[in-house]
Amino acid sequence: MNLAYKILSSKLKSGELVAGQQIGIQIDQTLTQDSTGTMAYLQLEAMGIEHVAVEKAVAYIDHNMLQTGFENMDDHEFIRSVAKKHGITFSKPGNGVCHQLQLENFAKPGKTLVGSDSHTPTCGAMGMIAIGAGGLDVAVAMATGTYYLQCPSVVRVNLVGKKAKWASAKDVILYILQQLSVKGGVNKIIEYTGEGLKELSLTDRATICNMGAELGATTSVFPTDEITKEYLIQQGREEDYVELKADEDATYDEEITVDLSKLVPLTAKPHSPDAVVPVSELRGMKINQVVIGSCTNSSLPDMLKAAKILKGRRVATHVSLVIAPGSSSILAMLSKCGALADMVAAGARILECGCGPCIGMGQAPLSKGVSLRTINRNFKGRSGTNDASVYLVSPEVAALSAIKGYLTDEFEDDMYLDDIENTPFVKNKNFFIDEYDPQNEVYMGPNIKPVPRGDKLPDTFTGKVCLKVGDNISTDHIVPSDSKLLPYRSNVPHLAKFSFCKVDDQFYNRCIENGGGFIVGGDNYGQGSSREHAALVPNYLKIKAIFAISFARIHRSNLINNGILPLVIDQKDYDFFNDQDEYELINLLDSVENNKAITVINKTNNQTITVKLKLSPREKTMIQYGGLLNAIKELGGDF
Amino acid sequence: MNLAYKILSSKLKSGELVAGQQIGIQIDQTLTQDSTGTMAYLQLEAMGIEHVAVEKAVAYIDHNMLQTGFENMDDHEFIRSVAKKHGITFSKPGNGVCHQLQLENFAKPGKTLVGSDSHTPTCGAMGMIAIGAGGLDVAVAMATGTYYLQCPSVVRVNLVGKKAKWASAKDVILYILQQLSVKGGVNKIIEYTGEGLKELSLTDRATICNMGAELGATTSVFPTDEITKEYLIQQGREEDYVELKADEDATYDEEITVDLSKLVPLTAKPHSPDAVVPVSELRGMKINQVVIGSCTNSSLPDMLKAAKILKGRRVATHVSLVIAPGSSSILAMLSKCGALADMVAAGARILECGCGPCIGMGQAPLSKGVSLRTINRNFKGRSGTNDASVYLVSPEVAALSAIKGYLTDEFEDDMYLDDIENTPFVKNKNFFIDEYDPQNEVYMGPNIKPVPRGDKLPDTFTGKVCLKVGDNISTDHIVPSDSKLLPYRSNVPHLAKFSFCKVDDQFYNRCIENGGGFIVGGDNYGQGSSREHAALVPNYLKIKAIFAISFARIHRSNLINNGILPLVIDQKDYDFFNDQDEYELINLLDSVENNKAITVINKTNNQTITVKLKLSPREKTMIQYGGLLNAIKELGGDF
Repeated sequence: MNLAYKILSSKLKSGELVAGQQIGIQIDQTLTQDSTGTMAYLQLEAMGIEHVAVEKAVAYIDHNMLQTGFENMDDHEFIRSVAKKHGITFSKPGNGVCHQLQLENFAKPGKTLVGSDSHTPTCGAMGMIAIGAGGLDVAVAMATGTYYLQCPSVVRVNLVGKKAKWASAKDVILYILQQLSVKGGVNKIIEYTGEGLKELSLTDRATICNMGAELGATTSVFPTDEITKEYLIQQGREEDYVELKADEDATYDEEITVDLSKLVPLTAKPHSPDAVVPVSELRGMKINQVVIGSCTNSSLPDMLKAAKILKGRRVATHVSLVIAPGSSSILAMLSKCGALADMVAAGARILECGCGPCIGMGQAPLSKGVSLRTINRNFKGRSGTNDASVYLVSPEVAALSAIKGYLTDEFEDDMYLDDIENTPFVKNKNFFIDEYDPQNEVYMGPNIKPVPRGDKLPDTFTGKVCLKVGDNISTDHIVPSDSKLLPYRSNVPHLAKFSFCKVDDQFYNRCIENGGGFIVGGDNYGQGSSREHAALVPNYLKIKAIFAISFARIHRSNLINNGILPLVIDQKDYDFFNDQDEYELINLLDSVENNKAITVINKTNNQTITVKLKLSPREKTMIQYGGLLNAIKELGGDF
Repeated sequence: MNLAYKILSSKLKSGELVAGQQIGIQIDQTLTQDSTGTMAYLQLEAMGIEHVAVEKAVAYIDHNMLQTGFENMDDHEFIRSVAKKHGITFSKPGNGVCHQLQLENFAKPGKTLVGSDSHTPTCGAMGMIAIGAGGLDVAVAMATGTYYLQCPSVVRVNLVGKKAKWASAKDVILYILQQLSVKGGVNKIIEYTGEGLKELSLTDRATICNMGAELGATTSVFPTDEITKEYLIQQGREEDYVELKADEDATYDEEITVDLSKLVPLTAKPHSPDAVVPVSELRGMKINQVVIGSCTNSSLPDMLKAAKILKGRRVATHVSLVIAPGSSSILAMLSKCGALADMVAAGARILECGCGPCIGMGQAPLSKGVSLRTINRNFKGRSGTNDASVYLVSPEVAALSAIKGYLTDEFEDDMYLDDIENTPFVKNKNFFIDEYDPQNEVYMGPNIKPVPRGDKLPDTFTGKVCLKVGDNISTDHIVPSDSKLLPYRSNVPHLAKFSFCKVDDQFYNRCIENGGGFIVGGDNYGQGSSREHAALVPNYLKIKAIFAISFARIHRSNLINNGILPLVIDQKDYDFFNDQDEYELINLLDSVENNKAITVINKTNNQTITVKLKLSPREKTMIQYGGLLNAIKELGGDF
């Protein structure tokens, strides 16, 4: 058995370990960050539980830390109050980035973790199964200790050779991205093996697992060894060490080999993490900005390597170099060992420990500017400047290029950091708050509104069509996301006013006027991001069913989670609907219970059609109870 | 002679040193920050000079450093390119706050400084005359070396007694604010004297001069002594020291005495810096946030005092403590001596060196939250949260209260910092860029538009009234300032679209349609801030004259600087105008040249009125040339 399946089988609660099957696994740890966490905790609150059902749940604040309006600190205070009420550890803003902190403080070999952030797989470096998920899924895991997913296949990455001097962990994962592409990991776990493992520090492995998310992988995992043990000893957690590795005769669904001795410094060109070329191909390209940090490359070794290059040198006059250490402990260590002063002396700007520029929270580049970043994503516009070009590189290439003023990998010998062992170790504990009080009052700032709840399924439902749209409607159409709306992720009533605003600015008014009703869509309705707000908002607006020719997979789940019927129609049925008449769904209780077709009557002309419905038993329950939250509250999580 | 007049007399270029008279003084140094600097440099560019005419001009970036859109880094790049072209020192973002940096690096006894920031008087601590001014005034000073102002009277503050243990420089100036109020310093220089001087370090004196701005004072000034000399030695600038003090028999216009031995920790309550009470009166008030930093209290001693209190202790779980050191050198020193690690260990968030929360650039408090801040202003809403309460306190009170979770001055004995002498001294130079190239191309991002220029005065001008308003129209009405519009301070065409939008949303359209024209106002037209955009925008919209019953002083100057006629009418004349008819001003050239009344004809009914105009010779020239920029460009600065 491979390592991935060993861990999964030890946690299996339902289903079979067969790629493509739905399985339920026991979850030991959860994490949230603040931009997804507010809604996740509103949902947790709505479930009415007392103490979380997992060994360790941590609520991090690392995204919205610029705090240009009251909404952000209100959100932080809300999360702190919920954490206290349900026995969740609260990580104060300033403590650092969730994945770095989870690795330092809580990650344990053999455990499972789900987190409401796509880079949760970072902790795979510790021999964990760590998966990113939507907020409600994480809330359910906190409430019930279970997470449902499609069982992935497993890809073996065989690491061979001695790592080339200036190749870094970033180059390992950029190389794999070049080979497999951003779709190469979908529904797969990437498992690392081979003699080359010993060439990679624990934080190197974290960088590699982190950007497994860019492969689209479910997660990535490393075995544990002396390097893992040393890291845990350094963190004062030797007792958490467990040796874990694949069986000698383990089998894999796919396999690739990476020769570490042949790696060269690489860069991902705009606007995709898999547009990878050697840095040498672009040597001399003028740059305006360099960013070192993010959950990908903000560890102590990464920072020390950059500091070594910067020491005694000067950032080019036309370059803005910003550095954000990954955690408060790392900041303190950099400070104590003199590396921070070296960076500052070179002319580096030191940002607060947090996600910052990686998520477009500040440090937007110059118009049409070139920014080198050690982060994980370089999608167009993500930096905050739509026409900027972001290149992904290692911390070493970033620091060297900052000094030179252009992209380069022409290192000097004395820039190499031989040893980081003598850095005095610091562990900050004072940003973590563990206060459990089930009576604690939940703080709700004026921008935080309760999560909308559906009604139980009625037998008959009558309403008008509030909107009829065409093919390929995305979640961006349903609920737009931009810097103006992002502070309102915990305010569904406010977001609702902007629902479909780029398609039909009367949608909201029509829903209010009609008291809810239906939406009719074409093919691939709800494509795009996993944004659960695209279902929460229609739920709030009392949309009871959506008729569409086909639904995108994740959005269909989100609709059912919210008690909204996703009803499949054909082209002829599509023409049946107009925005004038009133429509009635009849015998809903019987149809849903027995997976029968549903009859729809046009009340004006009495014409009828029947539409198909196919629900799994779990989905059926969610629809009957008016959504997952209601179902859990009445039946418990294991219905 | 007092010290203030000694320095002024040594720099006098025109006028007499009599309080209330207009004087022109030679300027040795200028400073700008980025939020006012962009427009100042657009104006400097428009003057067509080569090298600046002052000994030292510095362009700082310290305000817009969150950089949530491309506009900010574009502005920084613009300022860097202008600085290079005209021989101005550029201080990169991350270097710190302009006033702290000016004090460390450039302030010299006996010199004069004007800066486009109201807290420019900070350098009065070094025995300078340092004055805050509008951007165009600073641009003119850079171009010509001269600054015109109304000669102030001088208030003597006599410092007596030995400073009480927990009283700080902040308490000295808060005490004076309590005594004199926020209007107490208008058109005055505050000069400090007495035996108590030796109780105050140079950075203490800087704190006191800094908040002289809150008294409304023109500036504040300290004599120089051994303490000044020691500071300069530490900065490696001993040669800049000059002993300066008032004559034994110096006279003053007013005098107050501050007994330092009787001072207790004070706080300014919301929403005014002069709403001062002892901290002990509010002991126990729960707080949510503490901010240590800003140009007022971000020096090394301030930071070390806070660090001493935080060391080995823990920030209260419900408090967010943010600390922003005043300069990169201070950050490096804090790092080297271990104080930074002590702060972080306690749970303090370390922000980038800059203005940050003081100007509402991030860290907006909780809704209805209580924030203790070491900054200089606590105006309603300035923090970014309209219903928050901001209290101004010393760094010591801030740090202690952060630990306790409530406002308090009950210090423990071991919190006292006896000695800061052993802190290793660091001076960062790599953030300062000195590159002079008169051929350097000026970078203009898409958000940076040229400064609008008026036309030469015509003999006849015909137009419609684009807006008729009532009394007390403020610059906030004319050009609103909020977080949405602040990134557009270098884009007058964009700002123009929002001109008067809260009064009449058709104003802009009407100006475009009419091709400019007139505004008619009531009493106190243009009150409020010194915002020159309130004149730049009407200039851009081709408003040639404003008829009002009276004008606010600074706005009248700004209008003339922009070539717009400020014409005084009475109530009867006010009724003469309507928004239908066309009006003609005739014989303008003769009227302006000879300060004669101007004839206004209603072209529809041929009724006429005459309106008064009284201009100084310099003002006359500005009006004739269509503004100060045009006049300087054609005549040089000393017209």
